[in-house]
Amino acid sequence: MRKFDLTSAAQDVVAELRELASLTSNENGAQRIAWTPIWDRSIEWFKGKMQAEGAEIHIDAAHNIWAKIEGEMEDAVVIGSHLDCVPDGGWLDGALGIVSGMGILKQFGKNGKKPKHTIYIVCWADEEGARFGSSCVGSAAVSGSLHIEEIKKLKDNDGICFSDALKPYHMKLEDFPKARKEFLKKHIKAYLELHIEQAPLLESQGKSVASVYGITGCERQYIIFTGQSAHSGAPLSMRRDAFLAAAQAVLEFRKIGLQYDAYCTVGKIIVEPNVVTIFPGKCKISLDQRSIQPDMLKIIYEEARKACEKAAKANNVSVSFEHVWSNPPTAFDENLIAACEASVWEETGENTSMFSGSLHDAAEIAKIVPSVMMFAMSSAGLSHCKEENTPDGDLETAIRAFFRLAEKVIQG
Amino acid sequence: MRKFDLTSAAQDVVAELRELASLTSNENGAQRIAWTPIWDRSIEWFKGKMQAEGAEIHIDAAHNIWAKIEGEMEDAVVIGSHLDCVPDGGWLDGALGIVSGMGILKQFGKNGKKPKHTIYIVCWADEEGARFGSSCVGSAAVSGSLHIEEIKKLKDNDGICFSDALKPYHMKLEDFPKARKEFLKKHIKAYLELHIEQAPLLESQGKSVASVYGITGCERQYIIFTGQSAHSGAPLSMRRDAFLAAAQAVLEFRKIGLQYDAYCTVGKIIVEPNVVTIFPGKCKISLDQRSIQPDMLKIIYEEARKACEKAAKANNVSVSFEHVWSNPPTAFDENLIAACEASVWEETGENTSMFSGSLHDAAEIAKIVPSVMMFAMSSAGLSHCKEENTPDGDLETAIRAFFRLAEKVIQG
Repeated sequence: MRKFDLTSAAQDVVAELRELASLTSNENGAQRIAWTPIWDRSIEWFKGKMQAEGAEIHIDAAHNIWAKIEGEMEDAVVIGSHLDCVPDGGWLDGALGIVSGMGILKQFGKNGKKPKHTIYIVCWADEEGARFGSSCVGSAAVSGSLHIEEIKKLKDNDGICFSDALKPYHMKLEDFPKARKEFLKKHIKAYLELHIEQAPLLESQGKSVASVYGITGCERQYIIFTGQSAHSGAPLSMRRDAFLAAAQAVLEFRKIGLQYDAYCTVGKIIVEPNVVTIFPGKCKISLDQRSIQPDMLKIIYEEARKACEKAAKANNVSVSFEHVWSNPPTAFDENLIAACEASVWEETGENTSMFSGSLHDAAEIAKIVPSVMMFAMSSAGLSHCKEENTPDGDLETAIRAFFRLAEKVIQG
Repeated sequence: MRKFDLTSAAQDVVAELRELASLTSNENGAQRIAWTPIWDRSIEWFKGKMQAEGAEIHIDAAHNIWAKIEGEMEDAVVIGSHLDCVPDGGWLDGALGIVSGMGILKQFGKNGKKPKHTIYIVCWADEEGARFGSSCVGSAAVSGSLHIEEIKKLKDNDGICFSDALKPYHMKLEDFPKARKEFLKKHIKAYLELHIEQAPLLESQGKSVASVYGITGCERQYIIFTGQSAHSGAPLSMRRDAFLAAAQAVLEFRKIGLQYDAYCTVGKIIVEPNVVTIFPGKCKISLDQRSIQPDMLKIIYEEARKACEKAAKANNVSVSFEHVWSNPPTAFDENLIAACEASVWEETGENTSMFSGSLHDAAEIAKIVPSVMMFAMSSAGLSHCKEENTPDGDLETAIRAFFRLAEKVIQG
């Protein structure tokens, strides 16, 4: 039986993360985009490593990849995240959770002891939605919130539709919901996910790792300001400039976010006609609002609406709203949060706890089984880029804390 | 000899404008884009009508189309504008000046009296720059401010370069500057141009027509705000959002414009990465500033720079400036302004005088010969669209006032 040492186990995880990165990156960053050959390569790497440890591999109806080590009990603990990434992505987003899970599994199986609970390490399919624009595809199939009819219409930048991209996998979108039934047969009692923070909060507090007690809900809109474009030689006082109305509104959105301790993001801005010598008659912006408090989303959206209407009136333009997507906040399981906080405290001597502003597969899985997440700090909060990083020391601290959590839940 | 009646002459111009529109428009508006067959058709229409009046047609080295009626004196008066328009353009922009000129020419030539001064009606080539992006090509060739080397590089949306587009015309860009020498041989003593206002000022004052004493100068920049894009789950207080900095700056630009009675226009806005769930790390905006006062451009640009630097600092981003283009204000000829004002007064009983916020061929020609413009009001200030219009009554008033001006200058 392999002798277990927490320090070297965490170092091994970092080494394996580097191995994965070297196999699946180029000079622009990681290229494990879901439903592409480099993602397939990362899955083969995962399967090979897990089979070598005596794990049983299973691919479910939504192309989620499962590695299983049978425990003394049928009740199971799932450790998961995703191997796919955005184009030119980072080496840790998703991969950290998978490779840490692989490190945990290695303590058991043919080279280790038999676990009390059955263990699954799962690679959720297509968390990023980078190719077709729909996120958390594999975990949403399992949670039951995947909308097949909507996904069927999606096409990638080359005009290839989702169904056709699945042909090399011998899969059908219509079969994806079957993954839910497979999941429910697995007697899962807990889901654990380690992820990088993808934001600069922990770094600013000098922390390596945090227990995550929930994920913000999201209210997403397109807001369209409509005035009348005209020549840049038209007097300012007579203009109906849609972009100036939008500019006034977005500055208000930030005030709303700060006032209610919520997030307001305007990421997409499209003006028409977008010509140097014509002021815009139309401006469409996205508004993504997030809060961890269940009742807050409605309040901050109402405030944003009012701000838009005020800005529209002040600029003599009209405004309309197009609802894109809503998702309530996720509250993780209280017992698992307690175990997660204890693990962070044991490793760091600190009670570092936070919520996540970004979505994760855990938000889907928490809908059906008790779940919790842990975050490793992100340097400069950067993610979805090749500069994404966590210094080795912080990374190993987070991995050790996560190993402690897994031990508590698997052996508890 | 044809009997001249000002009222019916102005009505004839409107009828001929409608005839031209019917020949060169579709359901989306006028389609006389320079260097395309529909523009050619409008030129053939012009040539045919002018030859029928006994005018001598000449095409110069920059494809400006000249119709000449010899006068008692060699000294010549030029009446000009452009036949080309933007795609889906209006029926009056450019065409009003040409067709009014045609109406003036008709008083003379083989059906009328011999003018005191020689008359030229000129259709300047490619005023709009709609296909290749460079405006006032024909008039700038004549004024000497056309940059052949820059224009040579321009391509249309189909990747066709300017030189290749000239092949059907059996012309070479390198020959365009020869148009200046041809112009200088013509003994031109005055240039007159009637155009629609393309702004809502006259309409708001209830005026049909105005004498135009100058054209604003222009200072044009690209301004690039650079922060760091990150996920919409990042805390607001830690963001370096380039778009918020730009939004703050553009609202200041308007204040600067209002304070200094100048124009500030942000027409082009590009954010990166332009994704709903990522706040922008980069935002590039255009700033087009205009003033009729020669010293004002420097002042308002400096104020805009300060506003950008303040907004950048407040949002923890950096800002840089890329100079695009500058042009000093145009002051028209004092004697011609007086004649123009008198003509407006005679026709309307009002002293309506203004400057132009938009560029015209007259800005180029005023560099080399005494020039003046007259404006007809624009309904709702709309132009560069099929809704562009001036009610017949206002249009005829403006045409009559322009006929009066032409009479003063040609016969004076």
